[in-house]
Amino acid sequence: MFFTSDNGGPVHPQIMQALSDANSGFASGYGADAQMDAVRAQLREIFEAPEAAIYLVTTGTAANSLALATLCQPWQTVFCSPVAHIHEDECNAPEFYSGGAKLTLVGEGDKMTAAALRGAILDEETRGVHGPQRGPVSITQVTEKGRIYTLAEIEALTTVAKEFDLPVHLDGARFANALVALNCSPADMTWKAGVDAVSFGGTKNGCMGVEAVIFFDPKHAWEFELRRKRGAHLLSKHRYLSAQMLGYLDNDLWLTTARQANATCARLADGLRQVPDATFLVDPQANIIFATLPRAVHQRLFDAGAYYYLMSGTLEGDDPHEPLTARFVCDWSTQAETVDQFLSVARG
Amino acid sequence: MFFTSDNGGPVHPQIMQALSDANSGFASGYGADAQMDAVRAQLREIFEAPEAAIYLVTTGTAANSLALATLCQPWQTVFCSPVAHIHEDECNAPEFYSGGAKLTLVGEGDKMTAAALRGAILDEETRGVHGPQRGPVSITQVTEKGRIYTLAEIEALTTVAKEFDLPVHLDGARFANALVALNCSPADMTWKAGVDAVSFGGTKNGCMGVEAVIFFDPKHAWEFELRRKRGAHLLSKHRYLSAQMLGYLDNDLWLTTARQANATCARLADGLRQVPDATFLVDPQANIIFATLPRAVHQRLFDAGAYYYLMSGTLEGDDPHEPLTARFVCDWSTQAETVDQFLSVARG
Amino acid sequence: MFFTSDNGGPVHPQIMQALSDANSGFASGYGADAQMDAVRAQLREIFEAPEAAIYLVTTGTAANSLALATLCQPWQTVFCSPVAHIHEDECNAPEFYSGGAKLTLVGEGDKMTAAALRGAILDEETRGVHGPQRGPVSITQVTEKGRIYTLAEIEALTTVAKEFDLPVHLDGARFANALVALNCSPADMTWKAGVDAVSFGGTKNGCMGVEAVIFFDPKHAWEFELRRKRGAHLLSKHRYLSAQMLGYLDNDLWLTTARQANATCARLADGLRQVPDATFLVDPQANIIFATLPRAVHQRLFDAGAYYYLMSGTLEGDDPHEPLTARFVCDWSTQAETVDQFLSVARG
Amino acid sequence: MFFTSDNGGPVHPQIMQALSDANSGFASGYGADAQMDAVRAQLREIFEAPEAAIYLVTTGTAANSLALATLCQPWQTVFCSPVAHIHEDECNAPEFYSGGAKLTLVGEGDKMTAAALRGAILDEETRGVHGPQRGPVSITQVTEKGRIYTLAEIEALTTVAKEFDLPVHLDGARFANALVALNCSPADMTWKAGVDAVSFGGTKNGCMGVEAVIFFDPKHAWEFELRRKRGAHLLSKHRYLSAQMLGYLDNDLWLTTARQANATCARLADGLRQVPDATFLVDPQANIIFATLPRAVHQRLFDAGAYYYLMSGTLEGDDPHEPLTARFVCDWSTQAETVDQFLSVARG
Repeated sequence: MFFTSDNGGPVHPQIMQALSDANSGFASGYGADAQMDAVRAQLREIFEAPEAAIYLVTTGTAANSLALATLCQPWQTVFCSPVAHIHEDECNAPEFYSGGAKLTLVGEGDKMTAAALRGAILDEETRGVHGPQRGPVSITQVTEKGRIYTLAEIEALTTVAKEFDLPVHLDGARFANALVALNCSPADMTWKAGVDAVSFGGTKNGCMGVEAVIFFDPKHAWEFELRRKRGAHLLSKHRYLSAQMLGYLDNDLWLTTARQANATCARLADGLRQVPDATFLVDPQANIIFATLPRAVHQRLFDAGAYYYLMSGTLEGDDPHEPLTARFVCDWSTQAETVDQFLSVARG
Repeated sequence: MFFTSDNGGPVHPQIMQALSDANSGFASGYGADAQMDAVRAQLREIFEAPEAAIYLVTTGTAANSLALATLCQPWQTVFCSPVAHIHEDECNAPEFYSGGAKLTLVGEGDKMTAAALRGAILDEETRGVHGPQRGPVSITQVTEKGRIYTLAEIEALTTVAKEFDLPVHLDGARFANALVALNCSPADMTWKAGVDAVSFGGTKNGCMGVEAVIFFDPKHAWEFELRRKRGAHLLSKHRYLSAQMLGYLDNDLWLTTARQANATCARLADGLRQVPDATFLVDPQANIIFATLPRAVHQRLFDAGAYYYLMSGTLEGDDPHEPLTARFVCDWSTQAETVDQFLSVARG
Repeated sequence: MFFTSDNGGPVHPQIMQALSDANSGFASGYGADAQMDAVRAQLREIFEAPEAAIYLVTTGTAANSLALATLCQPWQTVFCSPVAHIHEDECNAPEFYSGGAKLTLVGEGDKMTAAALRGAILDEETRGVHGPQRGPVSITQVTEKGRIYTLAEIEALTTVAKEFDLPVHLDGARFANALVALNCSPADMTWKAGVDAVSFGGTKNGCMGVEAVIFFDPKHAWEFELRRKRGAHLLSKHRYLSAQMLGYLDNDLWLTTARQANATCARLADGLRQVPDATFLVDPQANIIFATLPRAVHQRLFDAGAYYYLMSGTLEGDDPHEPLTARFVCDWSTQAETVDQFLSVARG
Repeated sequence: MFFTSDNGGPVHPQIMQALSDANSGFASGYGADAQMDAVRAQLREIFEAPEAAIYLVTTGTAANSLALATLCQPWQTVFCSPVAHIHEDECNAPEFYSGGAKLTLVGEGDKMTAAALRGAILDEETRGVHGPQRGPVSITQVTEKGRIYTLAEIEALTTVAKEFDLPVHLDGARFANALVALNCSPADMTWKAGVDAVSFGGTKNGCMGVEAVIFFDPKHAWEFELRRKRGAHLLSKHRYLSAQMLGYLDNDLWLTTARQANATCARLADGLRQVPDATFLVDPQANIIFATLPRAVHQRLFDAGAYYYLMSGTLEGDDPHEPLTARFVCDWSTQAETVDQFLSVARG
C-alpha cells in the first residue's frame, strides 16, 4: 500500500516496449536521433504549436531550472507560490541555473491569485537598480497541494504577467493529470492561456525519467540547447529519452495513465470522506491529496504496512490528540484493490 | 558501418533485461532504492574500497563536473590536458558547476607528463591572491586520443599532485576499456595509484545512460549529494539507474563488453595498417583510434555508407592531395563482419 | 534641507585630512600598506578581539555579500528579515557572491524575533537533500527601519542560530549609530553576543567609501581574501581605504559623528511630534526615522526645498486625504539649524 | 627607489584637490551626482562618442570583469593573450562575473596577432553545442609586458573579431600611456579601430582608485548598471569617483602624467642599456619594462634599497651565474633623480 509519491511506481509496459523497440542498430547521439524528430512533430501537433522549440531532459528539476534560466536574468526575481517545487524542493537549482536570481513568494498558499501576483510584482523593482528586477512568473499545474488552476485563473495570472512584460513558465510535472481534470486541450492550458514555456512531465505519469521543455517562441531554442549541454543534461544516447516520450504519447497513453491515477485518487478521497473526523486540506482534484486523520487511523495504517508521508508531525513526538495531515499520491499503477484495502484499514 | 562514436550503439541485452527485472512494484525514489545498496556494495568490492562514497548520474559531463566541483574551489584552476573532454566538449560545464574555476592546460597532447604537470602547477599561484589558486588534477583514461596511461604514468602524475596537496580526478568515460587493456585491478588504476575520485563510465560501454562517481574518501559524500540535487541530476525513479549499473556489473559484463570493443577496434587497426599510406596519430590501444588515410580511401568508404568523423578537414574543401585524419570508435556492438566489410572497401 | 540618506553628505574633514596625510611617497599595494597594519591593530583593540581577521572594502553591499558568501554554501539559505538590505537593496548580490544561495525571510517586520527565527529555521531543511540547507543568520543593526536590537535580543537570535550550528552575520552599515544608542562596547554588541562576522560601516558615518569586514574566527581569513580579490574588491592603492578607516577611528571620531547624527535625528523626531497628525512607523532610536505626515505638510516641505523619500505613495497619484509616510535620515553633517528650519516649515 | 608598480605612488595633487573641492554639501548618491554628468560629457567629447555609455568603478579588475560579462555569455570563451591580466591576475574574476565563461589563450606572448587570433577562433566552436562558444576578444593596451599595439595591429585584430561577429574589449589599465606613445586620439585607438568597450584606467596614472568603463554602443547601458550593482561596485558616495575622474581629465592631466611616466621609464631604459650585459625582454615603449640583468647588479640594487620584482627566479635560490629578469614600472611620481640614482648603483 504505497502512496508516498507518483515516482515510486514502475514504468508503464508500453514505455518499456518503446525502449526495447528503440534498442537496435546505430542512432545519432545528443538529440540528433530520428525518434526525436518524431517527438518534436507529435508534441507540436498535440500543442497545436508548429513552431515550438522542444527538448527532453531527465528530471523535472532540470526542466524547470533550465526553462526558467532561459527566461530569466541573474538580477531578476521569479514569482512563484511559497510552496512551489522550484522553491521548496530543488535545493536552489533555479538559483544555480539562473546564476543567482531570486524567488519572490506570492501569497500564502499553493495557488497564486492575480491580485497577489500584481501586488508582489508592484512590490519589486521600485528601487531602480537597487532591488531585484522583475522576472518570470512560474505556475505549477497541478499545484503542489493537488489543486488545479482553471483556465480562467491561469489567464488571469498571465494577463498580469503580460502587463509587466514578464514571461510565464508552467511547471507541469503533473501536466496530464491537470489536463484530463480540466478536460481541455494542451493549447488551451498553455499558450492560448498566455503561457510561454512548459515543463511537460512524463516521469510521474508512467515514464522512466523524461520531461519535455517546450518554448512556444522558438527564439529561445539555441540558448536552451547551450544551457542544457552546459548543465550536463544533454544525453549522448538520447534516443532512449525520445523513445520514452514516444511510448508515452502513443495512443494517448499519457492521458490514459493520468485519468487512471486521478480516478484511483478520487476513489481514495471518496473513501477517506467516510473515515470519521477525516478532513481535506484542499478539495481533491487530481492524483495527490492531503488529508487530516486521527492519529489512531494513521497508527492502524502504518501497522498494516501502508506507506505515505505525514506532513504535520510524527506519530511519536507530538500531542497525542492532535490529528495529523498526510499526503497521498496515486500513479497509473496504483490498484483500486490497494485503495480499497487501505480504506478498509482506515475505517477500522 | 558506424564508427562515429561509442554512444551510437544499442544498450546491451543484459542491461535491458536488468531494467525489465527492476520494473515491478514500488521503489523508494531519489537513490533510496534497494538496488542502489547493491550497486554500492558491488562497486566497493570491485574497487576494494569499503568506505567509498558512490553515486550515479546520467551523463559523463555530469559525473566529471560534479566530481570536480566537489574537489575544487571557484578561485582555483583544474589541471588537465588541452584535449581533455572537460575542456573541449562540455560547453563550460566544469566552469559552471565549480562556480567559475579555470582550467589550466598542461602540455601539448592527450597525455600529461609529470614534468609538464609540475611545470604547470609551478606556473600557477606564484602571485598570492592575484592568480587562480592551484586546484585538482584531472586525468582522462582512456585519453581522448585513444591512448592509455600506464599505472606508472598515473602514479607519476598523482605524485606531483600530492606534492602540492592537490586532489586527483580520473575521467573514466572509457574506464573499462583502459582496465582490460592494462590488465590490472580497478584499485590499481585508481586509489592505489593515488586517484581520489573517479567518473566510472557505463554509457559508452553498453549502458543506456549511467555513470558512477566514486570518492575514495567518504568525506565528500554529503556535499556531492547536495551538488547533484542542486544540479538537477538526482533522478526520482533512481532504481533504473541502479538497475543499469547492476546489469553492467553482473557477471563482469562491463569487462566483457570492453574487451569486445577493444578487440574489434584492434581488428580495425590491424586492417588499416594494410591500407597503403595509412598512418596512425597515436598507437591504437583501446576502442578509439585516429588514422590518417588518403582522400580516395575516405571517398570510397563514405560512398559505401561508412559513418565516422573527419578531424582534419573535409573531403570537398581542402587540398585534394592531403590525406585526412579520421576518428574511428568501436563499441561492444560493433561486429567483426562490419569491420571486415569496412576494411575491404578501404583496401579498394 | 537634505534628509534622503546618510550617504549624501560630505566626508568628515578629519578623514579628508587622513587621506591627505597618507598621500606621500610609495606604499605597497593590495592591502600590504603599513596603514592597514594600524587599522587591524586598532579594530582588534576596539573589538577586544586580538585574533580577528579584518579586511576593508568600498561598499556595504560588498562587505555583506563577501562576508555572507564566506559563511555560506551555495545550497544553503540565509535567514534575514523581509526588509533586510541584503534582500531588498543589493540587486541579488548575496545570491551572486554565494553562488546561488537563497534568502529566507523571517517574520514580518525589520526586527527578527528568536521565535520567528526558530520557526523559519525549523521550516527549512526538513526535506533532506531536496530543500535548501540551513545557512547563516544575518541581522541588521541599526535595522532598515531605524530600530535597534538590544543586546538581549541579539543574544536571543544568536542562541537560536548556535542551537542549529549556524553562523551569525551582523550588517552594521550603521554600526556606530547603534553602538552609541546602546551605550555598550563593540565586543558586547558582537562576539560577546554571539556574532561571528560584522560588516562594520564607515561610509554612512563620515567616510568616503570604506567598510570593514571582521571575522572573529580567523579561519575565514584566506578564503575571504580570495573572495574579495575574485569579486574585484581588492584595491591596488589600498592605503587610501586604510587611511579613511584610521581617520574614522582616530580620537573616536566614529562615535562622535554617530552621536551627532543620532542627536540631530532625535531633534528632528522631537520636532515632528509637534506636527499635528504626525505619527512614527516605529519609535525613533538612531539616525533614520519613518514618519507619517499629512499631504499638506509634505507639500509645504517639498515646496520649501526639502529632500527626502516618500515610502507609501506620491503626492500626485493617490488619495489626497491619505497621509504619506516618509523616510528621514541624518548624518554627521546635518545641521541643527537645517532641522529647525525644516520643522518650522513642517509646522506651517 | 620604488619600481615595483604604478599603483604604489601617491595620488596626484590635482586629483586630491578635486576630491577636496567636491567635499561640500549634499550630493545624490549612486551615480546620480552632478559631477558624473560632467564626467560623462567630458569622456564622450574626448572619445568623440556622443552616445557612449560610461560608468565608473574602483578597480581595473571590476572594469574588465563587468565589461566582459556584459559582452559575454556564460557558455562562451574570451580570447586573450596568455599573459593577459584578466587571465593571470584577477583570481578568476572574469569567470565569476561572466557566470563561468572560459578564457582561450591566443598565441605565446603578450601581443596577439591577427593570424593567431583567427586560428584560435577557428579552433573553438567546431563542435556545435559541445564546445564553448566563441565570445569577446580582449586586448590589453599597453600590454602586460609593456608593449603597445599599433593602430594597424588593433584593427587587424578587430577585423578578425568582426568577421566572426565577436565584440572587442580593450583593457586600458594603462590607456593613457599607450595613447601618448602612439600620439593618436582616443577615438583612433578605440572605436575607430573597431573596439566596442574600454576599461579606461585612472588608478595607475595618478588617481586614487577609479576606472571608467565605456561602451560605444549604449545598448549595453542598463545591463551594465545592473551588473555593477549586483557586483557591489556601485558606490553610494559616488561623487568622489566622479571628482577623481574630473580631476584626472582636467587640463589633460591624464596625458601629462602618462607622458611623464613614459619619459621617466625611457630614461631608466636608456640608462639600463649602458649596464653591461643588460638586455630587454621586449623593446621598452611605455612605463613598464622587463630587463635582464646580472645577479651582481640586482644584488647591488637591492642592497642600495631599490624595490622591484624579479620575474625569473630569486637571488638566493638558483644558478648564481644566470642573469635575472626584473620588472620595472614608473608612474607620474617617479623622479628623474631617483632613476639616476638607481642607474648609478646599477652601473656599479
